[in-house]
Amino acid sequence: MRLIDGLEADRLYSEMGPGVEMSGGSVANTMAGIASLGGRAGYIGLLRDDQLGQVFRHDITAVGVTYRVPAASAGPATARCLILVTPDAQRTMNTYLGACVELGPEHLDRALIESAQVLYLEGYLFDPPRAKAAIRAAAEIAHGAGRKVSLSLSDPFCVERHRADFRALIADHVDIVFANEIEIGSLYETGDFEAAARAAAHDCEIAVLTRSAKGSVVVAGAARHEIPAAPVPQVVDTTGAGDLYASGFLYGITYGRLLDVCGRLGSLCAAEIISHIGARPERPLKDLAAASGLL
Amino acid sequence: MRLIDGLEADRLYSEMGPGVEMSGGSVANTMAGIASLGGRAGYIGLLRDDQLGQVFRHDITAVGVTYRVPAASAGPATARCLILVTPDAQRTMNTYLGACVELGPEHLDRALIESAQVLYLEGYLFDPPRAKAAIRAAAEIAHGAGRKVSLSLSDPFCVERHRADFRALIADHVDIVFANEIEIGSLYETGDFEAAARAAAHDCEIAVLTRSAKGSVVVAGAARHEIPAAPVPQVVDTTGAGDLYASGFLYGITYGRLLDVCGRLGSLCAAEIISHIGARPERPLKDLAAASGLL
Repeated sequence: MRLIDGLEADRLYSEMGPGVEMSGGSVANTMAGIASLGGRAGYIGLLRDDQLGQVFRHDITAVGVTYRVPAASAGPATARCLILVTPDAQRTMNTYLGACVELGPEHLDRALIESAQVLYLEGYLFDPPRAKAAIRAAAEIAHGAGRKVSLSLSDPFCVERHRADFRALIADHVDIVFANEIEIGSLYETGDFEAAARAAAHDCEIAVLTRSAKGSVVVAGAARHEIPAAPVPQVVDTTGAGDLYASGFLYGITYGRLLDVCGRLGSLCAAEIISHIGARPERPLKDLAAASGLL
Repeated sequence: MRLIDGLEADRLYSEMGPGVEMSGGSVANTMAGIASLGGRAGYIGLLRDDQLGQVFRHDITAVGVTYRVPAASAGPATARCLILVTPDAQRTMNTYLGACVELGPEHLDRALIESAQVLYLEGYLFDPPRAKAAIRAAAEIAHGAGRKVSLSLSDPFCVERHRADFRALIADHVDIVFANEIEIGSLYETGDFEAAARAAAHDCEIAVLTRSAKGSVVVAGAARHEIPAAPVPQVVDTTGAGDLYASGFLYGITYGRLLDVCGRLGSLCAAEIISHIGARPERPLKDLAAASGLL
């Protein structure tokens, strides 16, 4: 993922082939996945009152996620990400943050955060200037209400840009960390996956580490669970794989499932999302999970 | 397909589940398919200068279709169609015509029409009030330049609404007619497919009649070609099947292929489009056609 400004977004779009527009956003994808599993989820993020903003609000509320933050009536346009997907299903994401740069502590919905069993934060929020304060404030609200705080490292480049901030947030506030093997290696500055996993397990109650086709590893204290990747007939677009893994895992955690089952729910949701273009489920995840005997 | 106004479009959208946005429009889909086959195509239609309009223009020009009509800077928004697809791949289309209601003869690009081997008209254009005059004017320009005129009947309900106009246009101006078996039966008010096919072949030089999974029939004078449907692993969404059949057929005609090959190109393009959501090709049709030995 690389950050681009509005001019670069226009230039790049003019060079791109025909596209398809769909709602996205890392945490929003995760919450949509939880709702698709039949869970309850809410979302906090900032839109402009433009057409992309209207579509985003439609899609996330239509799937059943609580989303109450009013759209900004001035300032930058709703964020967009221009995603290029290669025939081998890899993607390059070019993100124009737009209205997200205005996100600050004043947009937090205290009642919503206090009501949630788990707060889920995305590392991408270290990029917009005022969101770091919102992240910390949200984590404090959640912990003040006796809730869990979880964090996705989001992206290895993002970890490079904000390593010290990530480390500090994790040390102070994170109970459950989600990362892929490159991100966790970058965070702890090691190429040794096992060393990185140990460091994460030391810093957090639960470390959830995804390894693409090699599956995932969940470490909680001395317990370690190896979870295989769920089978996919054809990998079409890997966008959203981590987001939807988190959907399954967080759904499992909030419904009291064993860590192993949480991981298998994550693998199942990730497998659905990489089988088609886009990072929102095309089929009800609840049905897929039930068919796999995981609900 | 049913026509809806802006209020009904808003009401329906608020009741719909999460969606995906992509460019569409019957003739625009057909032209995008021709470009994807490696052919040359142009398009005439009216947009507003809003975001949907910008996306439409981006997508059709990015695939290589000539599109020069300026966007309207006032008046109704760019047209949209709210499409509901059932698990068995059938679709209901709810069309808000928007800026299309302003389309008139003044928007015709005479040089573009005169330069094209075949003019392709959609029956849907009988719905907006001023487009009928544009249809006739375009057909006269094409015939004046010694070109062929083709027409898709578009939709059985549309045929019901405008049967006399369709009959008159076909009698006066249409060399190649495209229709599915319901549309052609409605046009000639008969439930007997063979009788309808004979009537169409009498009125036009070539009648191209599609029959879903039963394949298609191409009748030209005394010659008759039965073309099987191309195999599809899973039919996901039938939106655009007729549009893309026309892409293959028109590409074949303009590159001097035998009618049987034109029909098989049509079947191949239709098979690609019904294998996924949306009415624009996901894979280059040129590659598919080459792999099938049809180019």
